[in-house]
Amino acid sequence: MTNSNAPDARDAVDPAVRAELGRLRDSIDNIDAAVVHMLAERFKCTQQVGHLKAHHALPPADPAREARQIERLRELAESAKLDPAFAEKLLNFIISEVIRHHEQIAADNSSPWGSPRTESGGV
Amino acid sequence: MTNSNAPDARDAVDPAVRAELGRLRDSIDNIDAAVVHMLAERFKCTQQVGHLKAHHALPPADPAREARQIERLRELAESAKLDPAFAEKLLNFIISEVIRHHEQIAADNSSPWGSPRTESGGV
Repeated sequence: MTNSNAPDARDAVDPAVRAELGRLRDSIDNIDAAVVHMLAERFKCTQQVGHLKAHHALPPADPAREARQIERLRELAESAKLDPAFAEKLLNFIISEVIRHHEQIAADNSSPWGSPRTESGGV
Repeated sequence: MTNSNAPDARDAVDPAVRAELGRLRDSIDNIDAAVVHMLAERFKCTQQVGHLKAHHALPPADPAREARQIERLRELAESAKLDPAFAEKLLNFIISEVIRHHEQIAADNSSPWGSPRTESGGV
């Protein structure tokens, strides 16, 4: 009976199991905090890259660099027993955010009188 | 002239700028390696959570826990000067992968004769 309904099953769960679940979730929360702080540091780096690129008229995206990053991360993921396809999807997700930032920086730098998109609330 | 064409602009770039770009990219690569290893550890934890849930007939997804995680990560992101909306999208991206794993574990545990999806190459 307890297995047929999720909330009931939850209430009936062994306190030792709940304690173990709590222990694992504490670790997950610690890891998430670490990842958020690592990514904050990563975006500080990519913001600097964005400014360098904008000031030296380099394109926001760099497909060759991205291909090398993806290849390297897939290898690292494999050695860490993480699904390489997931690592690739994640990097693409982060890179698309970075490119969005770089385009904003480039737009802000492209004209001494500001971005033409300002009028319509862009950038 | 050099600014009108991206590859030419790239070739013409100051060696000091290229060195600075290299330095920043080395940091980005180090951070990415750290994130991949943190996430490998995170998936080890969530796999254990998945097995606990499957063995005790708890549902794979837990909306109340996820809402608390998102709220906490948005606060952490803000204090680390990371876009909270990005942190939330990222966590949702990771959670959807975790739920996929949990559903696989639950399917593998649901029947003593194995998953009905095995025949069609699933799970």
